[in-house]
Amino acid sequence: MPVVLVGTEIEGRANFMTVGWASRANANPPMISVGINKKHKTPEGILNNKTFSINIPNAGMAVPTDYCGLVSGSKADKSGVFDTFYGELKGAPMISECPVTMECELVETVELPTNYLFIGEIKGVYADEDCTEKNRPDMKKADAMVLTMTDNRYWRLGEFVDKAWGCGKDYSNKDIYE
Amino acid sequence: MPVVLVGTEIEGRANFMTVGWASRANANPPMISVGINKKHKTPEGILNNKTFSINIPNAGMAVPTDYCGLVSGSKADKSGVFDTFYGELKGAPMISECPVTMECELVETVELPTNYLFIGEIKGVYADEDCTEKNRPDMKKADAMVLTMTDNRYWRLGEFVDKAWGCGKDYSNKDIYE
Repeated sequence: MPVVLVGTEIEGRANFMTVGWASRANANPPMISVGINKKHKTPEGILNNKTFSINIPNAGMAVPTDYCGLVSGSKADKSGVFDTFYGELKGAPMISECPVTMECELVETVELPTNYLFIGEIKGVYADEDCTEKNRPDMKKADAMVLTMTDNRYWRLGEFVDKAWGCGKDYSNKDIYE
Repeated sequence: MPVVLVGTEIEGRANFMTVGWASRANANPPMISVGINKKHKTPEGILNNKTFSINIPNAGMAVPTDYCGLVSGSKADKSGVFDTFYGELKGAPMISECPVTMECELVETVELPTNYLFIGEIKGVYADEDCTEKNRPDMKKADAMVLTMTDNRYWRLGEFVDKAWGCGKDYSNKDIYE
């Protein structure tokens, strides 16, 4: 899974929580889903503000990123861990140090047994220019991290394997695979 | 995002579709969410059977995996691309060649503008023994692929960065970051 930090505003302060369960959910308009355990502080901010941010840290930020996954916003003030900025939405602080960030408007909240699945529409995307390619965020350039579970390890992207929605054109029949 | 193949049974045949929008959604019981465009054939199978499978291919399977993302089940019979097996659930064929597979029972269907977000409870997990560590699937050993968008590239996992829910204990204050 991609490693992201979810940004919210709780009691007037920026709060960031590291999350491994974020995914695109809808193509058009672009939406993203985030699964967050109900016990955490972040759901309170998202449900109050009806907004949140998604921040993609680079591998050099592993330690402060992991800290935001270890320590709850109810126990520590995490507003000073990173520099923050705002886009157009209230209540969705973003992290200046992150190469790519998004601000989202809450569209739907799915209540599951232990987690909320928050679905947000991406209203704005911000990226460092040197982490883009043709004006789009590039995860290799951004040096984004991948989380594997249940071994709980952060990884860099590795060897390029092939082109998605591309290399499959070389598939003729099952023989290539035997 | 992790590269997975979603397995369904459509008109009595196994069908597999490559998906980049899959994520864990609930901790306990374990659930997974999958965002799939409504135009595809796969939603028909999931909605009829109330089950689906998640199959994690290895990097050596990039070409047939990508083929299953390029060609619709309404245009081609994809039942012969891989060898299939079943677990306990009807309608959820799994791929023998995949190092890790899961069978899921549909719990909730969230209808978004262009996509369904299917939420399934993981009822069984199957893994090649040499792709496990302490009886749990290990994505590095499995040689699972990561998809980056919008550049649409498949990657292997690369350099180990640090321990998740671990390295953050080294965070003292913001100074380490300046």
